[in-house]
Amino acid sequence: MARVFNFSAGPAILPEEVLRQAREELLNWRGSGLCVAEMSHRDQEFVSIAEQAEADLRALLAIPDSYRVLFLQGGASSQFAMVPMNLLRGGDQADYLNTGSWSKKAIAEAKRFCAVEIAASTEDARFTRAPTQRELNLSSEAAYVHYTPNETIEGVEFPFVPETVDIPLAADMSSTLLSRPIEVSRYGVIYAGAQKNLGLAGLTLVIVREDLIGRPLAGTPAMFDYKTHADAGSMYNTPPTYAWYLAGLVFQWLRCRGGLAAMATINERKAGALYAAIDTSGFYANPVEPACRSRMNVPFTLADPGLDQKFLTEAKAADLVTLEGHRSVGGMRASIYNAMPEEGVRALIAFMQEFERRYG
Amino acid sequence: MARVFNFSAGPAILPEEVLRQAREELLNWRGSGLCVAEMSHRDQEFVSIAEQAEADLRALLAIPDSYRVLFLQGGASSQFAMVPMNLLRGGDQADYLNTGSWSKKAIAEAKRFCAVEIAASTEDARFTRAPTQRELNLSSEAAYVHYTPNETIEGVEFPFVPETVDIPLAADMSSTLLSRPIEVSRYGVIYAGAQKNLGLAGLTLVIVREDLIGRPLAGTPAMFDYKTHADAGSMYNTPPTYAWYLAGLVFQWLRCRGGLAAMATINERKAGALYAAIDTSGFYANPVEPACRSRMNVPFTLADPGLDQKFLTEAKAADLVTLEGHRSVGGMRASIYNAMPEEGVRALIAFMQEFERRYG
Repeated sequence: MARVFNFSAGPAILPEEVLRQAREELLNWRGSGLCVAEMSHRDQEFVSIAEQAEADLRALLAIPDSYRVLFLQGGASSQFAMVPMNLLRGGDQADYLNTGSWSKKAIAEAKRFCAVEIAASTEDARFTRAPTQRELNLSSEAAYVHYTPNETIEGVEFPFVPETVDIPLAADMSSTLLSRPIEVSRYGVIYAGAQKNLGLAGLTLVIVREDLIGRPLAGTPAMFDYKTHADAGSMYNTPPTYAWYLAGLVFQWLRCRGGLAAMATINERKAGALYAAIDTSGFYANPVEPACRSRMNVPFTLADPGLDQKFLTEAKAADLVTLEGHRSVGGMRASIYNAMPEEGVRALIAFMQEFERRYG
Repeated sequence: MARVFNFSAGPAILPEEVLRQAREELLNWRGSGLCVAEMSHRDQEFVSIAEQAEADLRALLAIPDSYRVLFLQGGASSQFAMVPMNLLRGGDQADYLNTGSWSKKAIAEAKRFCAVEIAASTEDARFTRAPTQRELNLSSEAAYVHYTPNETIEGVEFPFVPETVDIPLAADMSSTLLSRPIEVSRYGVIYAGAQKNLGLAGLTLVIVREDLIGRPLAGTPAMFDYKTHADAGSMYNTPPTYAWYLAGLVFQWLRCRGGLAAMATINERKAGALYAAIDTSGFYANPVEPACRSRMNVPFTLADPGLDQKFLTEAKAADLVTLEGHRSVGGMRASIYNAMPEEGVRALIAFMQEFERRYG
């Protein structure tokens, strides 16, 4: 059996070229006689891999010198605590935008550490849109503002970057980072689990403005203090070396394909075609306001939920896998990260149309 | 160039059979059309991989049902905080044995959370031995006792398990877990970074007695609460799936080789031969008391430190790599974990003897 098209929301599809290179190098990285996973993180060979990965990421995102890039562990769920622990900086209040399942998790965790003010919520609209800038009720007392630019489960994406004036903006970019260019200087801290657009689960990227580092909350474990990792070049303890290496391969793959502007064009084309297929059918539906639809995660429902299981079974038989929606919302979800080729989206659309023709 | 013998202390050598299987399955795990790293952690295929890994680990270590096995992130350095955060349970004091560099790190971190009493220290002996049971000055007020059964940097291993009566014993087994059978019921919590005997850096194993779970310190992040992970089968958030899979391959490899009793015999033979070569030479030396010498990490010095660089260069030319001692102690260190074949130790000994013949 050949490779399939994998629409998993994360861990997610990896570029086949990257997997082939990893396989080629698995037992012997460039004549070293070692798998990268076997190298000491202090060895010059691994250090060069690590530095190249950071340089490539900085080039892809045009990260200003005043920002540190940290290669950490623990996922976005750890950042839900690390953001307040590091960004409160003497304050006791933070603003959060409540726009979906991942916002809610970030909010619940932040409440352990400070007063959380909900500066906007789209829960009344069942998370089918993002708030507008004018709807944001930001407080000048907030130590920072936190939001989730792309809600992986609901498939809602902000069409703008919230303006917070001088208050640092913290963004959980797990399911959108590297899908298109961003202006890093608009943010205080950006974080992302790697298992969507960056590589292996177990690596967490943090891009943080230097002046926000170094005033952790009392009782912060060393491993949750950004300064610990910034001072040590992300090698305070053993980093997830193999995941770091694989992220580096993904960054090189992105640069070879023309960088993030080129990816944005492809991603818009993929998402546009899939949403068009949904909207023009009488059988599939997506509830999200068109301007706020995610380019990475496309949830959709069938007119008859009784057909869901048949849809999944036949899709799998057609080599289109992991299309079930998140258990909290049901229906289907197609995640179409950078590594999903346009051919995969076309195959999904063709399958959907044929399924509708037969059962719709 | 072929594979080399890699004596790195961690990340460390992996069994070649495991790497070959990983390579074979990299683009297509058992006909799934997916790399394991691309599977959703909620998918039945990954769940079966995860469950099999835990079952194999439980079989290898004969883990009682009253213990939970957690597949976490963050390394031993995160456990340095998680142990006090979870095991203090209303107490404000813990006993620590100070036996080397890793003990010292655990102690420094624990001081953020409680009063640390040093129940024994071998610092006066420059960490060249373990304390005896009679030297332990344990307090009945301690919430737990923490020690490091094998000090990776100094090459010191406890020849006994400290008796703490009813006080839970916490052990950083990063560089010894799976090297030989242990009696899990002697411990309250055992933890280990995976990058020595278990697989990839980025996975951290925790084996914890059930009754110690569920009373975290106020202000403990959800991700640092053992209960979070125990309740969710280590899938509260996305676990490091590829590292979990690879650890499973290592566990199967160990079972195929006869389990931990068989490994202990091989490991004693490897360490015995290497220490004998050191002791019978007039050129190499190891300062550790013979009864306390590590079976996993063998530090040694050359009679003339001016020859260190030449030793390393010529060793590398002979395909014997990563032999430099830790920067804090200098000299050489040969880490000879499970995955190091006896042939590798024989090759190192032959090289050492030839080097001594030429330069000694």
